[in-house]
Amino acid sequence: MKSTNNKNLFSKEDLNKWYLEVIKKSEVFLHDDIKGFFYFDWYGLKIWERIKIILSDIFEENQIREIKTPLFFQKSELEQEKNHFSGFSPEVFELSYKNHQLILRPTSEILFLKYFKKKLFSYKDLPFIAGQWGNVFRKEKNNKAFLRNNEFFWYEGHGVFENQTEVQKNIAFLNNLFYSFFNDILFLPFIFGNKTENEKFFGALETFTFEVLLPDNQWLQATTVHNLGTNFSKNFSFKLPDKSNQFFYPWTNSFGISTRIIGGLIMSHGDENGLVLPSEIAVFQVCFVIYWKFLDEKKIKSFLDEWKYKLKHIFHLRFIFNSQKVDPFWFLKDCIIKGVCLFVEIGRKEFEEKFFTFFTRTNFKKEKINISNANKNFFWTNLSLLNASIKAKQDNFLKKNLKEPSSIDEFNNFLKDKTSFFIYVNLKSLKDHHVFEKKINSFDLSIRAISSMNVEKKCFFSQEKATHIIYIGRAY
Amino acid sequence: MKSTNNKNLFSKEDLNKWYLEVIKKSEVFLHDDIKGFFYFDWYGLKIWERIKIILSDIFEENQIREIKTPLFFQKSELEQEKNHFSGFSPEVFELSYKNHQLILRPTSEILFLKYFKKKLFSYKDLPFIAGQWGNVFRKEKNNKAFLRNNEFFWYEGHGVFENQTEVQKNIAFLNNLFYSFFNDILFLPFIFGNKTENEKFFGALETFTFEVLLPDNQWLQATTVHNLGTNFSKNFSFKLPDKSNQFFYPWTNSFGISTRIIGGLIMSHGDENGLVLPSEIAVFQVCFVIYWKFLDEKKIKSFLDEWKYKLKHIFHLRFIFNSQKVDPFWFLKDCIIKGVCLFVEIGRKEFEEKFFTFFTRTNFKKEKINISNANKNFFWTNLSLLNASIKAKQDNFLKKNLKEPSSIDEFNNFLKDKTSFFIYVNLKSLKDHHVFEKKINSFDLSIRAISSMNVEKKCFFSQEKATHIIYIGRAY
Repeated sequence: MKSTNNKNLFSKEDLNKWYLEVIKKSEVFLHDDIKGFFYFDWYGLKIWERIKIILSDIFEENQIREIKTPLFFQKSELEQEKNHFSGFSPEVFELSYKNHQLILRPTSEILFLKYFKKKLFSYKDLPFIAGQWGNVFRKEKNNKAFLRNNEFFWYEGHGVFENQTEVQKNIAFLNNLFYSFFNDILFLPFIFGNKTENEKFFGALETFTFEVLLPDNQWLQATTVHNLGTNFSKNFSFKLPDKSNQFFYPWTNSFGISTRIIGGLIMSHGDENGLVLPSEIAVFQVCFVIYWKFLDEKKIKSFLDEWKYKLKHIFHLRFIFNSQKVDPFWFLKDCIIKGVCLFVEIGRKEFEEKFFTFFTRTNFKKEKINISNANKNFFWTNLSLLNASIKAKQDNFLKKNLKEPSSIDEFNNFLKDKTSFFIYVNLKSLKDHHVFEKKINSFDLSIRAISSMNVEKKCFFSQEKATHIIYIGRAY
Repeated sequence: MKSTNNKNLFSKEDLNKWYLEVIKKSEVFLHDDIKGFFYFDWYGLKIWERIKIILSDIFEENQIREIKTPLFFQKSELEQEKNHFSGFSPEVFELSYKNHQLILRPTSEILFLKYFKKKLFSYKDLPFIAGQWGNVFRKEKNNKAFLRNNEFFWYEGHGVFENQTEVQKNIAFLNNLFYSFFNDILFLPFIFGNKTENEKFFGALETFTFEVLLPDNQWLQATTVHNLGTNFSKNFSFKLPDKSNQFFYPWTNSFGISTRIIGGLIMSHGDENGLVLPSEIAVFQVCFVIYWKFLDEKKIKSFLDEWKYKLKHIFHLRFIFNSQKVDPFWFLKDCIIKGVCLFVEIGRKEFEEKFFTFFTRTNFKKEKINISNANKNFFWTNLSLLNASIKAKQDNFLKKNLKEPSSIDEFNNFLKDKTSFFIYVNLKSLKDHHVFEKKINSFDLSIRAISSMNVEKKCFFSQEKATHIIYIGRAY
C-alpha cells in the first residue's frame, strides 16, 4: 500500500451524513428500531471506557465513592422539589408498579439524597461525595446519535457539605479537573463559565458549564457542575447535627459528564478518513500492520512476540496487531477509520532491512524508521505531536468561528446570522440582563456561558472596564 | 489491641439477621424505600468490580465484544418467542411510550438478536460473541438482598454460531471457564450440571448450571450457560447465507453471572467478624494499621511511602493504609468487617525493633515478622494459605451437607427433611423422569442439576452401571 492520504473515505461536507456513516463504520453506534434508543457498539463503548478510566482514577484519589442507585424513584418525590419537577416532568418515562407511580431517573439528585439520608449521621461525615456510572432516561423530541437520545450513559457525582465555603471549594476543584480534562486530554474547542438564571439546571443555585463548539456552529453542553445550595436538603428534610448538636441543612452539589462527549469528540476531531482520537482517549495508540504473506511465518512470529512484550510492558502503549487470518489491507483501513494514532507497516522489505514504515493518523506522510530507533521515546514523542496537531487545529477552529463583534451593527448581524460570538461586558452596567437575554433568545440563540475575567478590556456597551465575557450561540 | 479473635461482632446463628447486619456494616448493600430495589453501596460495588475485571479480561482475550443494548424492547417481540414469553411475562416491568408497549429487559436474548441482525451478514462473520454488564428487571414476589431483587446487575453473553458443533465447542469453553472461576477463585461449595427439561431456561434447548449450596441448605443458581439452538433465530427470522449462499438459521447461546454471586460469597465465606473474601475477590488484600500517635510522624511517613511503592509496584498487591486522620482501632475493626485478607500492625515497638505484627483474616493468630522477611513471597504465600483455608472449609461443608442416601428409606427421609443430597443413576433405567421429578417437586424440592460422570458407580434404583449424578435440594 503506497499511500493512504488521497483516499478520502467519507466526505465531511455534509456533516450529518458524514457523522452517521462514521459512527456506524467505526463500530461506535447503532440505531435501535425504536426511535431515540441505541446500541452502544463495542468500539464506542471502549472509547467511553477510556474516559471512565481516566476520570475514575481521579475520583478515587479524591475519595469520591462509586455506587449504584436504583433506576426508579417515586413521582411524588419528584414533585417535592418544585423547580426540579417543572424542569424534568415533561420528559420523564413513568411506569406503575404496585401502588407506586415510578419515574425512570432522568438524573439522580433525588436518589442520591435518599442515599445520603441512609449513610450520613453527623457533620463529621462531611464532606461526602459519591457518584455513579449508569444509564438515564429522558424523552427527547429530536434525536441525534449521542447528543439527544432517550436513554444515554453518564457519570453523575453528588456531594454533601457542611456549608457554602466547603461546597465552593469542591466546585473549584471540579471545575479545575474538568478544565484540565478538556484542555489537556480531549483537546475540544470549548468555553467555560456560568449559566444564566434562565439556562441553569432545574433546582440549582448556580451551574458551571463546559461547552464545545461543534463544526456545524452549534454549542454542545458537554459537562456541568451545579451548586444546589440547601434546596434539595430542605425539600427532602435532610438534616444533620452540627458541632453543637444543632440540626442544619447540608449544602449539596452535583456534576456530570455524559456520552454526548463522544459525539463531540467524533464531530470535532474526525476527518474524511474516519475517527481521529487524542492519544489518551484512543482505544489503540499503535497498530502494527503485518503483510503476512510476504513474510517468513516463524521468524515474524517470534519478532512480533518480542514487540508485543516491549509495547505492553516497557513502552506502556495500547496496541493492536493483525493476526494471520486478517487481511492487512482491510485491517489498515479499519484502523484508520477507528482513529488509531500511530501506524507501523511491516512487509518483506521492512523485515529484511530492519526498518518500519511509519505514519501517524493526522499526517499520512510515510517514514522509514530504523527499528533500533523505534524506542519508547519515539512512540511517545509521536503521540505528543499528534496531540499537538489536534489541539492546534481546534485552537484555530475556535479562533476562526467564535467571533468578536467590533460594532453594534456587527453584533446585530451576528444575531441575525446565528454566528457564535463573545462580548466583553461590565455586568453592572448591563442593567437589565433579562431584556438582553430575551433579545438574544428571540434570534434562536442563547447565552451559552458567562465567564469572569481579569484581562484589561472595555465593556462592549458601556466603555467601562469589562468584568465578564458573555458567549452567545446556538445550542444543540 | 492485644487480640481480635474473641470479639465476635455478629452471631451467625440466625443467618438471615447476620446477613442483613453484615451487608450493611460492610457498606455492601442498602435497601431502597421501594421494596425490592436497592442501593449497591461502594464496597459491594468494588467486590463486583473485582469479578468484572477477572471475567472481562478472559472475555476480551477470547474475542467476546462488550456492548450496551437499549434497556427496552417491544412487548410484541417478547410474544414472538412463545416459550420465552410464557416464562418471563408474569415478571416483566412494562411502560407505554408513544405507540409502543415497552418491556424493561428481564434478560436480553431478544435485544442481542436485534443487534446480531444489524451486525452480521454472512457465515464468515461467525462465530460472533458479545456481552454486556448491565441492569435487568424482574418482579420478584419475595425479596432477599442480592438473591432476589426487582433490579439487579449482571453480565450476559450471547453468541452466534454456524452449527451445533460450533455452539457446543463454545459451551464447553464457557463451562470450563466458569468451573475454574468457581473452583479456583471463588471457592464456593458448588455443583455443576445440566438442568432438567422442567428447570431449564425459557426457550433454551439445554441449560448448564453452577449451583452453590448456601449455609441455610438452599441452592443458589449462580451461573448458567444456555444452548438456544435455532429457536431464537427462527422466531426472529434471523438468517445468514452459508458458503454456497444458501440461507440458514444460526445457532445461538447465552450465558450469565449476576450480583447474586455476591450474596453467595458473603453467606458462604463470612463469619462472626464479617466478610471473608478469597484473595482474588478481596477489594484490599493487605491493610497496614498505623498507630500514628505512638510514632514519629516524619519517620513513619517516609517509611510508609517506601512501603506503598513496594506493595504496589513490586509486590502487585491491593492494599490500604489508615491516614493520620483515621483512628487505627476503628480502621482495624472496619477492615476485619470488610474481609481484608492480611493485616499488618505498626506501633512504636514494631517500628523501633523493625518487625510487623501480622495476622490473617481467617486465622487471627498474631505473629512477629521481621521486616526484612516481609517480602513479596511472604505476602503471596499467606494469601495462598488464606485461600486454602477458605477452600478447605467449603469442601468440608459440602461433604457434610450434600448427602448420599444409602437406602430407599433414607432417600424418602431426605425428601421429607428437605435434605440436600445426590444419587447415582443410570438415566436409561430411570424410565419416567417426569414422574420422578414430580415426586421430588411435591416435597418442595427440585432437581438442581444432572451431571454425567465417569467413575464406576451403581445406579441407586436399578443396580446397573450409573451414568449420571442427580443433585436434589431446595432452591432459593
